[in-house]
Amino acid sequence: MRHLLDTKTLSRDAALRILDVAEDMADTQQREVKKLPTLRGKTVVNLFFEDSTRTRISFEAAAKRLSADVINFSAKGSSVSKGESLQDTAQTLQAMGADAVVIRHGASGAPRTLATSGWITAGVVNAGDGTHEHPTQALLDAFTIRKRRFGTDSRGRDLSGLAVTIVGDILHSRVARSNVWLLHTLGATVTLVAPPTLVPQDMSAWPVRVVYDLDAAVAEAPDALMMLRIQLERMNAAYFPTEREYSRRWGLDATRLAGLAADSIVMHPGPMNRGLEISADAADSSRSTVLDQVSNGVSVRMAVLYLLLAGERDDDGRAA
Amino acid sequence: MRHLLDTKTLSRDAALRILDVAEDMADTQQREVKKLPTLRGKTVVNLFFEDSTRTRISFEAAAKRLSADVINFSAKGSSVSKGESLQDTAQTLQAMGADAVVIRHGASGAPRTLATSGWITAGVVNAGDGTHEHPTQALLDAFTIRKRRFGTDSRGRDLSGLAVTIVGDILHSRVARSNVWLLHTLGATVTLVAPPTLVPQDMSAWPVRVVYDLDAAVAEAPDALMMLRIQLERMNAAYFPTEREYSRRWGLDATRLAGLAADSIVMHPGPMNRGLEISADAADSSRSTVLDQVSNGVSVRMAVLYLLLAGERDDDGRAA
Amino acid sequence: MRHLLDTKTLSRDAALRILDVAEDMADTQQREVKKLPTLRGKTVVNLFFEDSTRTRISFEAAAKRLSADVINFSAKGSSVSKGESLQDTAQTLQAMGADAVVIRHGASGAPRTLATSGWITAGVVNAGDGTHEHPTQALLDAFTIRKRRFGTDSRGRDLSGLAVTIVGDILHSRVARSNVWLLHTLGATVTLVAPPTLVPQDMSAWPVRVVYDLDAAVAEAPDALMMLRIQLERMNAAYFPTEREYSRRWGLDATRLAGLAADSIVMHPGPMNRGLEISADAADSSRSTVLDQVSNGVSVRMAVLYLLLAGERDDDGRAA
Repeated sequence: MRHLLDTKTLSRDAALRILDVAEDMADTQQREVKKLPTLRGKTVVNLFFEDSTRTRISFEAAAKRLSADVINFSAKGSSVSKGESLQDTAQTLQAMGADAVVIRHGASGAPRTLATSGWITAGVVNAGDGTHEHPTQALLDAFTIRKRRFGTDSRGRDLSGLAVTIVGDILHSRVARSNVWLLHTLGATVTLVAPPTLVPQDMSAWPVRVVYDLDAAVAEAPDALMMLRIQLERMNAAYFPTEREYSRRWGLDATRLAGLAADSIVMHPGPMNRGLEISADAADSSRSTVLDQVSNGVSVRMAVLYLLLAGERDDDGRAA
Repeated sequence: MRHLLDTKTLSRDAALRILDVAEDMADTQQREVKKLPTLRGKTVVNLFFEDSTRTRISFEAAAKRLSADVINFSAKGSSVSKGESLQDTAQTLQAMGADAVVIRHGASGAPRTLATSGWITAGVVNAGDGTHEHPTQALLDAFTIRKRRFGTDSRGRDLSGLAVTIVGDILHSRVARSNVWLLHTLGATVTLVAPPTLVPQDMSAWPVRVVYDLDAAVAEAPDALMMLRIQLERMNAAYFPTEREYSRRWGLDATRLAGLAADSIVMHPGPMNRGLEISADAADSSRSTVLDQVSNGVSVRMAVLYLLLAGERDDDGRAA
Repeated sequence: MRHLLDTKTLSRDAALRILDVAEDMADTQQREVKKLPTLRGKTVVNLFFEDSTRTRISFEAAAKRLSADVINFSAKGSSVSKGESLQDTAQTLQAMGADAVVIRHGASGAPRTLATSGWITAGVVNAGDGTHEHPTQALLDAFTIRKRRFGTDSRGRDLSGLAVTIVGDILHSRVARSNVWLLHTLGATVTLVAPPTLVPQDMSAWPVRVVYDLDAAVAEAPDALMMLRIQLERMNAAYFPTEREYSRRWGLDATRLAGLAADSIVMHPGPMNRGLEISADAADSSRSTVLDQVSNGVSVRMAVLYLLLAGERDDDGRAA
């Protein structure tokens, strides 16, 4: 694997390879000494143009457990914010010897530009770009669903026959997009539930069904119900109902939680707005995989960094 | 030891254990290669809700010398500042595999909440919470007093028979509180000197004597005179005299310095306001232990992290 | 070598020693595992009073490849910004066990004060002070020139007989100053080209020639043409022409690029203002050493940290 830019172009085999290596990584994390020497001497740069402490420290923990050196480069306050181009930043990091660049950027497509421009040979991992994709989030979500369903018998399996329902602001969510593509590739059936104003206008290319009634969706007993974070700061009155209204119609409360099938799981990428898109009951219930997702995130990111930096590479500029 | 939350509930034996291990750590720091492999594979998270570069880098240096991985999590600009609960932050860090969380928080009691809530199994170290406590500061102060008094013969000793006088803004000082409890536990006699408006109203539970005249306190020849930092930003005119007045009545100047007994030491937790609570003469005199305190701080924090992460644990949620 | 404070007082032998060790470091960076155990157990503190992500991460990468522990201390938001003196900060870092302090400071001379004050025994590296010097930048520039000219036959050689032309805001540039002194020491001939208002009034002590016509300077076929970054934020209308005017008269555009001799190189310390002091054509041309400079920067900083921390020291407070 050369880069991880999206899940839309990630093949089923490549995805399963990441998930299976992540299983190995998760196993090592159970041991007394969690540190592996695998990436000793490699340098991973976290290039964050947007704040995201959670994602940054998850990648940082993943890289350090593989003994890589980590350099955090917050683009705020740097020459980048004074107008340095992405090209110059990228080439600088490359010249300093970065082996992988984990990039979060407000512009959709920035990681692909970085990876395919010829500016760098370092592996590029998309850690969230605009409203486009956030592939490691989708991979950790798929890992979590698979693990809950198949336990120690997960390796090699995809998600065929499983139904996943994603609820919330689909319009702005890169998490939703990455999940839709990956879940589809892995054979799951995906249903989206959202206020009509928070769904993209043209959904014809999306391999999903869209419904608007959360109660009906819950009654269908999905294997996983994934609640998206409401980004209050992105909202404006034109398409967002009041918080109370949102919570009443699209939030996961105790009643809906009780209505789920016995083995349905509740997912959330975090950080949660407790009381808005998810109630405290739901967040802390035994169905909730919120903390598994965080923990699995480190394993999945270890796997991705491992495959980028220690695995074989092809040269077509994307996961292979 | 499971957590270090305060000195008020820290037993004499537990305190001496920390101080004695810190002696071992200080010895290793004298060697050519200062790095110990003890905590290899362990992850220490510095979770700082308030800026404090000094305390943060002291813990960071301590953890790195024990070969732990360190992740710095400044809560500013993170999802925490967007209203994420302490619970969610804590559980996230736990799920990422944090073995210890060093927390500084503006709210008194936050570290205890973190440690006793059941949210995490990681060890918790209080690095300063509101006006409550700052236990590692008190431990490094006690270490410094003991070392100056007993030298290489310090191990196993407490501070019985020693007199320590703490001067300044007692009302707002977590450093003062942690020192009062620990010094009392270790057998020292504690005197507080402060402007009347900067002493808590009800002192009945404090095992100390309060006086208001620094000259008289100096004349009593304490073994250690500890000057607190004046937090100008916390002050308001209602209870704070002018800086000049403060300095004249409660500052350590050359005259008072000269009035101390020959073997009295002058302490300050830093950073100093030279010319306000302490004169440059006093700060730089041979009696001053200010830099010893900084240096001992690394050793004490190494000891605390070692005892939390490599030592035996009990399960009552506090130092044992 | 005890400190690296400037190039003005750096001897030819000391400079060549750094450049030759940097050659060794560059060689190690070609290998599969780039990490050397040389500085294991040493602590390098990056003490930055001004933001400079590029320089900070270059030093950080250099230190980590030598297995040193790195602690980043941004003085913004710390007690330093609350008025703590440089003395107290320095002594604190020393007491915490810093072996080297890499300092960037807005005040010319701050690194020398730090190194010669007696406050610390740690080695001090000037990473840019006011308008005074930025010695590692000049060393990496000299390394780059030497490497381009002599290739694998560089070791032991100085720059005798080479002509270097530096273009831009000489008045405010510490990069220019450090280059002037070092290039002169190494035997090169230095020409400065600048708008008359951006040259210091008294140039009598500078071992250079100053000209005002870039086209004439280009026609002289210098071995290296070094374009300085325009610091727009430092400019004011009184001595700065418009950007368009600046670019037309003192910018390196395609025409001037074509006018250079066949083996002339184009240098820039970065980050570049593409289209202002340098055109994209020039920046990305095969003559450009911009990325070599970045890469060589890590090698040179590895060499400096190595010589400070693992090499022999003298005690006169400067490079020897």
